[in-house]
Amino acid sequence: MTAPSGVCDVIVVGGGISGLSAAKLLKASGLNPVVLEARDRVGGRTFTVQNKETKWVDLGGAYIGPTQNRILRLAKEYDIKTYKVNEQERLVHYVNGKSYPFKGSFPPMWNPIVLLDFNNLWRTMDQMGSEIPREAPWRAPHAEEWDKMTMLQLFEKICWTSTVRRFATLFVRVNVTSEPHEVSSLWFLWYVKQCGGTMRIFSTSNGGQERKFVGGSSQISECMARELGDQVKLQSPVYSIDQSGDAVVVETLDKQTYTAKYVVVATPPGLNLKMHFNPELPPLRNQLIHRVPMGSVIKCMVYYKENFWRKKGYCGSMVIEEEGSPIGLTLDDTKPDGSVPAIMGFILARQCRKLSGLTKHERLKRICEIYSRVLDSEEALHPVHYEEKNWCEEEYSGGCYTAYFPPGILTQYGKVLREPVGRLYFAGTETATEWSGYMEGAVQAGERAAREVMCAMGRIPPSQVWQTEPQSVVRDTFY
Amino acid sequence: MTAPSGVCDVIVVGGGISGLSAAKLLKASGLNPVVLEARDRVGGRTFTVQNKETKWVDLGGAYIGPTQNRILRLAKEYDIKTYKVNEQERLVHYVNGKSYPFKGSFPPMWNPIVLLDFNNLWRTMDQMGSEIPREAPWRAPHAEEWDKMTMLQLFEKICWTSTVRRFATLFVRVNVTSEPHEVSSLWFLWYVKQCGGTMRIFSTSNGGQERKFVGGSSQISECMARELGDQVKLQSPVYSIDQSGDAVVVETLDKQTYTAKYVVVATPPGLNLKMHFNPELPPLRNQLIHRVPMGSVIKCMVYYKENFWRKKGYCGSMVIEEEGSPIGLTLDDTKPDGSVPAIMGFILARQCRKLSGLTKHERLKRICEIYSRVLDSEEALHPVHYEEKNWCEEEYSGGCYTAYFPPGILTQYGKVLREPVGRLYFAGTETATEWSGYMEGAVQAGERAAREVMCAMGRIPPSQVWQTEPQSVVRDTFY
Repeated sequence: MTAPSGVCDVIVVGGGISGLSAAKLLKASGLNPVVLEARDRVGGRTFTVQNKETKWVDLGGAYIGPTQNRILRLAKEYDIKTYKVNEQERLVHYVNGKSYPFKGSFPPMWNPIVLLDFNNLWRTMDQMGSEIPREAPWRAPHAEEWDKMTMLQLFEKICWTSTVRRFATLFVRVNVTSEPHEVSSLWFLWYVKQCGGTMRIFSTSNGGQERKFVGGSSQISECMARELGDQVKLQSPVYSIDQSGDAVVVETLDKQTYTAKYVVVATPPGLNLKMHFNPELPPLRNQLIHRVPMGSVIKCMVYYKENFWRKKGYCGSMVIEEEGSPIGLTLDDTKPDGSVPAIMGFILARQCRKLSGLTKHERLKRICEIYSRVLDSEEALHPVHYEEKNWCEEEYSGGCYTAYFPPGILTQYGKVLREPVGRLYFAGTETATEWSGYMEGAVQAGERAAREVMCAMGRIPPSQVWQTEPQSVVRDTFY
Repeated sequence: MTAPSGVCDVIVVGGGISGLSAAKLLKASGLNPVVLEARDRVGGRTFTVQNKETKWVDLGGAYIGPTQNRILRLAKEYDIKTYKVNEQERLVHYVNGKSYPFKGSFPPMWNPIVLLDFNNLWRTMDQMGSEIPREAPWRAPHAEEWDKMTMLQLFEKICWTSTVRRFATLFVRVNVTSEPHEVSSLWFLWYVKQCGGTMRIFSTSNGGQERKFVGGSSQISECMARELGDQVKLQSPVYSIDQSGDAVVVETLDKQTYTAKYVVVATPPGLNLKMHFNPELPPLRNQLIHRVPMGSVIKCMVYYKENFWRKKGYCGSMVIEEEGSPIGLTLDDTKPDGSVPAIMGFILARQCRKLSGLTKHERLKRICEIYSRVLDSEEALHPVHYEEKNWCEEEYSGGCYTAYFPPGILTQYGKVLREPVGRLYFAGTETATEWSGYMEGAVQAGERAAREVMCAMGRIPPSQVWQTEPQSVVRDTFY
């Protein structure tokens, strides 16, 4: 038997934003946490790369917006500035092989029947969302009925026109990196609702994509990790959690053994499977973690010599509806001072699976071709640099942005998502009730799990486990 | 660095029927395999218990039938006898609170409209199945369309009457331990097809449930394990597979290190997640293994002093359609000599999740109550013994009988199900093309994976990897 490498109060499995938020709060409360991170870096699904071509680039989670008060609070604390994603000029909606410039969050629809249908779609989804409790979607009045349907089915019921049905498909792909026929409608409606509704989730200005962090989102995790010092162990994938004895014993691939009174598991639910549990998990949790796959996305950043789209009166946002297009949505990724012109694009869901087999170069070529068509620009064909990240290949994420629930799972297994198992508590953005799937949800979940542990220790009353967050006002700041 | 605990030709991960079949064939071919099994027993999803109350009882996979030629060949080799499940007397169909005795595989429908609808259901499913290639269901002409639909949706399209729709729901639950709204229709139609069609899969006489092994199904694995001797390592859960060097290095929870030239992974696909891979799995496989959950079932055996149902003219088979019934299907589980009268029943899918929280005693009580009503017998309320196994709580199975594919997964990820990854080859009944989900499929998959390894070694040509199996004629044999 190896001697324990570390004895601490709480072991946190996962050094993403959620795990680090948990550890930060535990430490601030006078406890001694250790964070075990599988990768050689902190940040999890946020990943900022620095190099001369890009200065810095977020290849993972990057966008933040109003009502995401917890992540904004952390940013303020660490003096990490935010800036607005460029939306000064017109956006472009590409459909039926043609580009339609527009202003606002959603492309306008000119046919009056289509417009009625379009408005009805958003109204209906938000109306249905209003019936779903954010902390317990399985208790919605129509939970069973809606969970038996996929979003494809729901769209077939709601939408009269194929135009709107096609846009609705893009809406699902962009928001949850999966296909409408893959996801439960109860789950998707809950997801949109807990982000503040259809308008908030899809918008850049005044929405989920309003801002980015100057210098990249990984800084949040790096600042928290710095605070925790050598309490954060990198390259320490956990493969075993044994709570059969007095202390919980945790083992890592690098042959270290850690013991603690409590464990916070801050991984996506499906990655609980990387660990062997003693005793075994209860039946519902044992099955839940096989039922919540991560979405599929490649984040692609194409760099250009000049910001040619702005000169043509385009802001860089493209909403691309075309069967064969690799990219579904783009946003300008130029630095706030106008340097390093770039366009960020997502290869989503089905396209992601299809294009995973190509070379990086082939993907870039196809991306530039569609940008060239959408922006009607020869310059789009001549990038000066390219960065991409296929999150499907990450063993320790499983995909991005977040987990989805196939039909039937949320009503049957949802209630055990954050139910403690002995001395194990569950964090990770998937267990959040506000902006789950986002950096904000990661913080909410991490801090809640930390308080659950403190409550179990008798340090705080149960009434203090869940806390609301005061509004954080963001100001524009450039370098 | 620990000294290697074992150097061998091939490491087989998983000591169920599939892994042991692979190892057996490798050994017979002059190679030196090692089988690493997580549990303290072999057999995987087959599990025979012996005690004085039951003599022996199969709490896992048990049934075999005609066309399952590989498992029957193994049984013959080890001189394990089979016997017919009792279907001498009448079966009972319980619906709308009333019992209808019948003979044959499916309950008769008396209303002529319902009968037309019923016949149309089976004909349509078998017709659709005939278009699906068993070795590549994703290449079916309507693959995309059918994979976007759940079986619930398909039944809504095919069935005119609620009577038939309800029976169809039971048909899904009984065959794949999941709900119609959870499974892809492409996958389910493929599954039924590769078992020989709707009649074969559902039937006792001349179908998948025709026979059992005298003495229990675990004997198959035990006989193979005996042959392999100390090449089978129990209590050896694999947590790491490293093929970055010259040899593949495999590590187990009991701190042993094994090295080999090749690895056969013979676990359900989702349990690949218990292992940390170096290098990481390719993107599609990395995501596939999060997308194929195992079904939900509790196998329940109720023992009685006397075989009272046969005296009433019932064989013990009950097809129970009632919303609240814990059990969906029963079969007589009395020993072939008439001793140890017992009824086997399945708690399926939704009911399984609902009743997992009860005590064993509470479940028994509810089961006896429904048996008493269906068989109209007071005696059913007085069991003398009870055995059950909730497969949802098994960390190293994840559920039973087999993995299911939610909508959208088979077309997007199916093709990597048995695609080798470097020196890793994939077995397990889920990778079979005949009777996948059954013991037969486990053998087919294990032997095919073993031959893939031999082919990679240059010992056999690619044309010999896939082999057909001559028909095995079963004869009745009693003790």
